Amino acid sequence: MFRTFALPLALTGALALTGCAPAPAPPPAAATPVVDNPADIAALNDARAAFMKAYEAGDATAIGNLYMPDAISESNNQPSLVGRDAIVASLKGMFEQVGVKTTLTPAETRTLGNVGLDRGTYTVTVTPKAGAPPSTSEGRYMVIYVKDADGTWRVSRDMDNGLMPPAPPSTAAPAGESKQ
Amino acid sequence: MFRTFALPLALTGALALTGCAPAPAPPPAAATPVVDNPADIAALNDARAAFMKAYEAGDATAIGNLYMPDAISESNNQPSLVGRDAIVASLKGMFEQVGVKTTLTPAETRTLGNVGLDRGTYTVTVTPKAGAPPSTSEGRYMVIYVKDADGTWRVSRDMDNGLMPPAPPSTAAPAGESKQ
Repeated sequence: MFRTFALPLALTGALALTGCAPAPAPPPAAATPVVDNPADIAALNDARAAFMKAYEAGDATAIGNLYMPDAISESNNQPSLVGRDAIVASLKGMFEQVGVKTTLTPAETRTLGNVGLDRGTYTVTVTPKAGAPPSTSEGRYMVIYVKDADGTWRVSRDMDNGLMPPAPPSTAAPAGESKQ
Repeated sequence: MFRTFALPLALTGALALTGCAPAPAPPPAAATPVVDNPADIAALNDARAAFMKAYEAGDATAIGNLYMPDAISESNNQPSLVGRDAIVASLKGMFEQVGVKTTLTPAETRTLGNVGLDRGTYTVTVTPKAGAPPSTSEGRYMVIYVKDADGTWRVSRDMDNGLMPPAPPSTAAPAGESKQ
Protein backbone atom coordinates (compact mmCIF):
# COMPACT_ATOMS: atom_id res chain seq x y z
CA MET A 1 0.00 0.00 0.00
CA PHE A 2 2.83 2.39 0.77
CA ARG A 3 4.41 2.09 -2.62
CA THR A 4 2.22 4.86 -3.92
CA PHE A 5 4.43 7.85 -3.43
CA ALA A 6 7.79 6.08 -3.49
CA LEU A 7 10.29 7.66 -5.83
CA PRO A 8 12.33 5.49 -8.16
CA LEU A 9 15.68 4.84 -6.55
CA ALA A 10 17.44 5.94 -9.70
CA LEU A 11 16.20 9.48 -9.12
CA THR A 12 16.87 9.73 -5.42
CA GLY A 13 20.59 10.29 -5.77
CA ALA A 14 20.55 12.28 -8.97
CA LEU A 15 21.22 15.59 -7.24
CA ALA A 16 24.69 14.28 -6.34
CA LEU A 17 25.62 14.08 -10.03
CA THR A 18 25.64 17.75 -10.96
CA GLY A 19 29.41 17.96 -11.04
CA CYS A 20 29.83 20.25 -8.05
CA ALA A 21 30.88 17.95 -5.27
CA PRO A 22 31.68 20.56 -2.58
CA ALA A 23 28.27 22.15 -2.76
CA PRO A 24 25.92 20.93 -0.08
CA ALA A 25 22.83 19.15 -1.23
CA PRO A 26 19.90 21.53 -1.37
CA PRO A 27 17.56 21.27 1.60
CA PRO A 28 14.47 19.12 1.14
CA ALA A 29 12.35 22.25 0.85
CA ALA A 30 14.11 23.02 -2.42
CA ALA A 31 12.39 20.17 -4.19
CA THR A 32 11.15 21.20 -7.59
CA PRO A 33 8.93 18.48 -9.00
CA VAL A 34 7.67 19.29 -12.45
CA VAL A 35 4.15 20.69 -12.49
CA ASP A 36 1.80 19.74 -15.31
CA ASN A 37 4.50 18.51 -17.66
CA PRO A 38 2.69 18.37 -21.04
CA ALA A 39 3.94 14.84 -21.72
CA ASP A 40 2.59 13.70 -18.35
CA ILE A 41 -0.78 15.36 -18.90
CA ALA A 42 -0.96 13.70 -22.31
CA ALA A 43 -0.19 10.36 -20.68
CA LEU A 44 -3.04 10.79 -18.23
CA ASN A 45 -5.37 11.72 -21.06
CA ASP A 46 -4.25 8.58 -22.89
CA ALA A 47 -4.81 6.46 -19.79
CA ARG A 48 -8.33 7.83 -19.42
CA ALA A 49 -9.07 7.05 -23.08
CA ALA A 50 -7.65 3.54 -22.68
CA PHE A 51 -9.83 3.04 -19.61
CA MET A 52 -12.98 3.93 -21.55
CA LYS A 53 -11.98 1.73 -24.50
CA ALA A 54 -11.21 -1.28 -22.31
CA TYR A 55 -14.47 -0.86 -20.41
CA GLU A 56 -16.48 -0.84 -23.61
CA ALA A 57 -14.57 -3.93 -24.77
CA GLY A 58 -15.29 -5.66 -21.46
CA ASP A 59 -11.56 -6.33 -21.11
CA ALA A 60 -10.89 -6.72 -17.39
CA THR A 61 -7.23 -7.54 -17.87
CA ALA A 62 -6.62 -4.42 -19.95
CA ILE A 63 -8.31 -2.30 -17.29
CA GLY A 64 -6.22 -4.00 -14.62
CA ASN A 65 -3.04 -3.04 -16.44
CA LEU A 66 -4.06 0.61 -16.08
CA TYR A 67 -3.85 0.19 -12.30
CA MET A 68 -0.77 -0.15 -10.11
CA PRO A 69 -0.40 -3.65 -8.64
CA ASP A 70 -1.14 -2.16 -5.20
CA ALA A 71 -3.95 0.13 -6.34
CA ILE A 72 -7.05 0.62 -4.21
CA SER A 73 -10.33 1.20 -6.00
CA GLU A 74 -13.30 2.50 -4.03
CA SER A 75 -16.48 2.66 -6.05
CA ASN A 76 -19.65 4.06 -4.58
CA ASN A 77 -21.67 1.56 -2.54
CA GLN A 78 -19.20 -1.24 -3.28
CA PRO A 79 -16.51 -2.85 -1.15
CA SER A 80 -13.02 -1.41 -1.45
CA LEU A 81 -10.91 -3.40 -3.93
CA VAL A 82 -7.31 -3.71 -2.75
CA GLY A 83 -4.80 -4.63 -5.42
CA ARG A 84 -4.92 -5.11 -9.17
CA ASP A 85 -5.88 -8.77 -8.85
CA ALA A 86 -8.97 -7.94 -6.82
CA ILE A 87 -9.90 -5.20 -9.28
CA VAL A 88 -9.58 -7.53 -12.26
CA ALA A 89 -11.55 -10.31 -10.54
CA SER A 90 -14.36 -7.88 -9.75
CA LEU A 91 -14.42 -6.59 -13.32
CA LYS A 92 -14.48 -10.10 -14.78
CA GLY A 93 -17.48 -10.95 -12.64
CA MET A 94 -19.24 -7.80 -13.76
CA PHE A 95 -18.49 -8.25 -17.46
CA GLU A 96 -19.97 -11.76 -17.35
CA GLN A 97 -23.30 -10.18 -16.57
CA VAL A 98 -23.34 -6.77 -18.23
CA GLY A 99 -21.83 -4.62 -20.91
CA VAL A 100 -20.62 -1.25 -19.66
CA LYS A 101 -20.02 1.94 -21.59
CA THR A 102 -18.24 4.54 -19.51
CA THR A 103 -17.65 8.13 -20.55
CA LEU A 104 -15.25 10.12 -18.38
CA THR A 105 -15.29 13.90 -18.75
CA PRO A 106 -12.34 15.48 -16.96
CA ALA A 107 -12.73 18.71 -15.00
CA GLU A 108 -9.12 18.80 -13.83
CA THR A 109 -6.01 16.86 -14.87
CA ARG A 110 -2.82 17.67 -12.98
CA THR A 111 0.60 16.24 -12.38
CA LEU A 112 3.31 17.05 -9.86
CA GLY A 113 6.47 15.09 -10.44
CA ASN A 114 5.47 11.45 -10.40
CA VAL A 115 1.97 11.87 -8.99
CA GLY A 116 -1.14 13.04 -10.78
CA LEU A 117 -4.77 13.86 -10.24
CA ASP A 118 -7.67 13.41 -12.62
CA ARG A 119 -11.12 14.55 -11.54
CA GLY A 120 -14.35 14.90 -13.38
CA THR A 121 -17.71 13.38 -14.11
CA TYR A 122 -18.77 10.08 -15.58
CA THR A 123 -21.72 8.66 -17.42
CA VAL A 124 -22.12 4.90 -17.30
CA THR A 125 -24.58 2.87 -19.34
CA VAL A 126 -25.00 -0.70 -18.15
CA THR A 127 -26.60 -3.23 -20.51
CA PRO A 128 -27.48 -6.59 -18.94
CA LYS A 129 -26.52 -9.52 -21.12
CA ALA A 130 -29.71 -11.27 -19.99
CA GLY A 131 -31.68 -8.84 -22.12
CA ALA A 132 -33.04 -6.30 -19.67
CA PRO A 133 -33.05 -2.70 -20.89
CA PRO A 134 -29.89 -0.64 -20.34
CA SER A 135 -29.70 1.86 -17.51
CA THR A 136 -27.60 5.01 -17.32
CA SER A 137 -26.17 6.74 -14.28
CA GLU A 138 -24.00 9.78 -13.71
CA GLY A 139 -21.51 10.73 -11.06
CA ARG A 140 -18.09 12.14 -10.23
CA TYR A 141 -14.71 10.47 -10.15
CA MET A 142 -11.37 11.29 -8.54
CA VAL A 143 -8.26 9.36 -9.57
CA ILE A 144 -4.74 9.56 -8.18
CA TYR A 145 -2.12 8.46 -10.67
CA VAL A 146 1.51 7.58 -10.09
CA LYS A 147 4.25 7.08 -12.62
CA ASP A 148 5.22 3.43 -12.41
CA ALA A 149 8.85 2.26 -12.47
CA ASP A 150 8.53 1.57 -16.21
CA GLY A 151 7.50 5.18 -16.86
CA THR A 152 3.83 4.34 -17.37
CA TRP A 153 1.28 6.39 -15.47
CA ARG A 154 -1.09 4.07 -13.63
CA VAL A 155 -4.02 4.52 -11.28
CA SER A 156 -3.02 4.29 -7.63
CA ARG A 157 -6.27 5.26 -5.91
CA ASP A 158 -9.70 5.99 -7.27
CA MET A 159 -13.08 6.88 -5.88
CA ASP A 160 -16.41 7.87 -7.36
CA ASN A 161 -19.71 9.05 -6.02
CA GLY A 162 -23.17 10.17 -7.05
CA LEU A 163 -24.19 13.55 -8.34
CA MET A 164 -27.79 13.42 -7.21
CA PRO A 165 -29.61 12.51 -4.03
CA PRO A 166 -31.10 9.02 -4.13
CA ALA A 167 -34.68 8.75 -5.26
CA PRO A 168 -37.14 9.31 -2.42
CA PRO A 169 -38.95 6.29 -1.00
CA SER A 170 -41.82 5.19 -3.18
CA THR A 171 -44.32 6.27 -0.54
CA ALA A 172 -43.22 9.92 -0.78
CA ALA A 173 -44.61 12.26 -3.41
CA PRO A 174 -41.96 13.55 -5.84
CA ALA A 175 -40.78 17.05 -5.04
CA GLY A 176 -42.95 19.68 -6.64
CA GLU A 177 -46.07 17.50 -6.90
CA SER A 178 -49.01 18.39 -4.73
CA LYS A 179 -52.00 17.21 -6.73
CA GLN A 180 -53.74 15.23 -4.06
CA MET B 1 -8.72 25.98 -9.34
CA PHE B 2 -5.19 25.58 -10.58
CA ARG B 3 -3.58 26.91 -7.45
CA THR B 4 -3.65 23.47 -5.93
CA PHE B 5 -0.26 22.18 -6.91
CA ALA B 6 1.50 25.52 -7.37
CA LEU B 7 4.76 25.75 -5.52
CA PRO B 8 5.54 28.79 -3.39
CA LEU B 9 7.63 31.17 -5.46
CA ALA B 10 10.19 31.38 -2.67
CA LEU B 11 11.09 27.76 -3.27
CA THR B 12 11.13 27.79 -7.03
CA GLY B 13 14.52 29.44 -7.31
CA ALA B 14 16.12 27.91 -4.22
CA LEU B 15 18.25 25.51 -6.22
CA ALA B 16 20.10 28.48 -7.66
CA LEU B 17 21.36 29.46 -4.20
CA THR B 18 23.59 26.52 -3.42
CA GLY B 19 26.79 28.48 -4.01
CA CYS B 20 27.83 26.69 -7.14
CA ALA B 21 26.91 29.05 -9.91
CA PRO B 22 28.58 27.24 -12.83
CA ALA B 23 26.82 23.99 -12.14
CA PRO B 24 23.82 23.46 -14.35
CA ALA B 25 20.49 23.17 -12.62
CA PRO B 26 19.61 19.55 -12.04
CA PRO B 27 17.16 18.17 -14.54
CA PRO B 28 13.53 18.22 -13.50
CA ALA B 29 13.64 14.48 -12.90
CA ALA B 30 16.01 15.08 -9.99
CA ALA B 31 13.27 16.46 -7.80
CA THR B 32 13.37 15.04 -4.30
CA PRO B 33 10.22 16.05 -2.45
CA VAL B 34 10.13 14.81 1.11
CA VAL B 35 8.01 11.68 1.55
CA ASP B 36 5.95 11.29 4.74
CA ASN B 37 7.82 13.92 6.72
CA PRO B 38 6.74 13.18 10.33
CA ALA B 39 5.89 16.83 10.98
CA ASP B 40 3.67 16.88 7.88
CA ILE B 41 1.92 13.64 8.82
CA ALA B 42 1.33 15.07 12.30
CA ALA B 43 -0.12 18.20 10.73
CA LEU B 44 -2.57 16.13 8.68
CA ASN B 45 -3.56 14.20 11.79
CA ASP B 46 -4.12 17.51 13.56
CA ALA B 47 -6.20 18.81 10.66
CA ARG B 48 -8.38 15.70 10.75
CA ALA B 49 -8.88 16.10 14.50
CA ALA B 50 -9.74 19.78 14.05
CA PHE B 51 -12.24 18.85 11.35
CA MET B 52 -14.04 16.45 13.69
CA LYS B 53 -14.02 18.95 16.54
CA ALA B 54 -15.38 21.79 14.41
CA TYR B 55 -18.08 19.54 12.96
CA GLU B 56 -19.25 18.55 16.42
CA ALA B 57 -19.24 22.22 17.44
CA GLY B 58 -21.27 23.12 14.35
CA ASP B 59 -18.66 25.74 13.49
CA ALA B 60 -18.86 26.26 9.73
CA THR B 61 -16.23 29.02 9.73
CA ALA B 62 -13.70 26.85 11.56
CA ILE B 63 -14.30 24.04 9.08
CA GLY B 64 -13.92 26.49 6.21
CA ASN B 65 -10.52 27.54 7.52
CA LEU B 66 -9.37 23.94 7.15
CA TYR B 67 -9.98 24.24 3.39
CA MET B 68 -7.95 26.12 0.81
CA PRO B 69 -9.81 29.18 -0.54
CA ASP B 70 -10.08 27.38 -3.90
CA ALA B 71 -10.95 23.96 -2.48
CA ILE B 72 -13.50 21.73 -4.17
CA SER B 73 -15.63 19.51 -1.95
CA GLU B 74 -17.60 16.69 -3.54
CA SER B 75 -19.83 14.89 -1.09
CA ASN B 76 -21.85 11.89 -2.15
CA ASN B 77 -25.19 12.75 -3.76
CA GLN B 78 -24.61 16.47 -3.27
CA PRO B 79 -23.64 19.22 -5.69
CA SER B 80 -19.93 19.99 -5.96
CA LEU B 81 -18.96 22.92 -3.73
CA VAL B 82 -16.35 25.12 -5.40
CA GLY B 83 -14.42 27.40 -3.07
CA ARG B 84 -14.25 27.89 0.68
CA ASP B 85 -17.12 30.38 0.65
CA ALA B 86 -19.49 27.89 -0.95
CA ILE B 87 -18.38 25.20 1.49
CA VAL B 88 -18.99 27.45 4.51
CA ALA B 89 -22.39 28.56 3.22
CA SER B 90 -23.45 24.95 2.72
CA LEU B 91 -22.27 24.01 6.21
CA LYS B 92 -24.05 26.96 7.81
CA GLY B 93 -27.29 25.88 6.17
CA MET B 94 -26.81 22.34 7.40
CA PHE B 95 -25.92 23.31 10.96
CA GLU B 96 -29.10 25.38 11.22
CA GLN B 97 -31.06 22.19 10.85
CA VAL B 98 -28.95 19.41 12.34
CA GLY B 99 -26.13 18.58 14.69
CA VAL B 100 -23.45 16.41 13.13
CA LYS B 101 -20.91 14.19 14.83
CA THR B 102 -18.30 12.91 12.39
CA THR B 103 -15.67 10.31 13.18
CA LEU B 104 -12.91 9.91 10.60
CA THR B 105 -10.78 6.78 10.81
CA PRO B 106 -7.74 7.04 8.54
CA ALA B 107 -6.55 4.05 6.54
CA GLU B 108 -3.71 5.94 4.85
CA THR B 109 -2.09 9.31 5.51
CA ARG B 110 0.70 10.34 3.16
CA THR B 111 2.62 13.41 2.14
CA LEU B 112 4.92 14.12 -0.76
CA GLY B 113 6.51 17.52 -0.55
CA ASN B 114 3.66 20.00 -0.30
CA VAL B 115 0.82 17.63 -1.21
CA GLY B 116 -0.82 15.02 0.96
CA LEU B 117 -3.41 12.28 0.89
CA ASP B 118 -5.69 11.16 3.68
CA ARG B 119 -8.04 8.25 3.05
CA GLY B 120 -10.23 6.24 5.32
CA THR B 121 -13.72 5.65 6.58
CA TYR B 122 -16.21 7.85 8.34
CA THR B 123 -19.15 7.47 10.64
CA VAL B 124 -21.60 10.37 10.75
CA THR B 125 -24.44 10.77 13.20
CA VAL B 126 -26.95 13.45 12.26
CA THR B 127 -29.32 14.75 14.92
CA PRO B 128 -32.14 16.97 13.65
CA LYS B 129 -32.67 20.05 15.79
CA ALA B 130 -36.42 19.68 15.24
CA GLY B 131 -36.38 16.66 17.51
CA ALA B 132 -36.42 13.68 15.16
CA PRO B 133 -34.24 10.76 16.23
CA PRO B 134 -30.58 10.77 15.13
CA SER B 135 -29.45 8.68 12.18
CA THR B 136 -26.01 7.22 11.56
CA SER B 137 -24.32 6.44 8.27
CA GLU B 138 -20.92 5.10 7.25
CA GLY B 139 -18.74 5.58 4.23
CA ARG B 140 -15.28 6.30 2.85
CA TYR B 141 -13.44 9.57 2.37
CA MET B 142 -10.48 10.67 0.27
CA VAL B 143 -8.88 14.05 0.93
CA ILE B 144 -6.08 15.77 -0.95
CA TYR B 145 -4.20 18.27 1.17
CA VAL B 146 -1.78 20.98 0.13
CA LYS B 147 0.54 23.04 2.26
CA ASP B 148 -0.72 26.61 2.08
CA ALA B 149 1.60 29.60 1.68
CA ASP B 150 1.48 30.16 5.46
CA GLY B 151 2.74 26.62 6.07
CA THR B 152 -0.65 25.28 7.14
CA TRP B 153 -1.86 22.07 5.53
CA ARG B 154 -5.36 22.60 4.14
CA VAL B 155 -7.85 20.50 2.22
CA SER B 156 -7.68 21.07 -1.52
CA ARG B 157 -10.04 18.39 -2.80
CA ASP B 158 -12.26 15.95 -1.00
CA MET B 159 -14.73 13.25 -1.92
CA ASP B 160 -16.68 10.64 -0.03
CA ASN B 161 -18.92 7.77 -0.94
CA GLY B 162 -20.97 4.96 0.51
CA LEU B 163 -19.70 1.64 1.78
CA MET B 164 -22.86 -0.34 1.22
CA PRO B 165 -25.32 -0.81 -1.63
CA PRO B 166 -28.46 1.27 -1.19
CA ALA B 167 -31.38 -0.39 0.50
CA PRO B 168 -33.53 -2.40 -1.91
CA PRO B 169 -36.88 -0.94 -2.95
CA SER B 170 -39.51 -1.44 -0.31
CA THR B 171 -41.35 -3.92 -2.53
CA ALA B 172 -38.39 -6.31 -2.58
CA ALA B 173 -37.80 -8.86 0.16
CA PRO B 174 -34.58 -8.27 2.12
CA ALA B 175 -31.72 -10.51 1.04
CA GLY B 176 -31.80 -13.85 2.83
CA GLU B 177 -35.52 -13.78 3.53
CA SER B 178 -37.68 -16.33 1.74
CA LYS B 179 -40.55 -16.93 4.14
CA GLN B 180 -43.38 -16.51 1.71
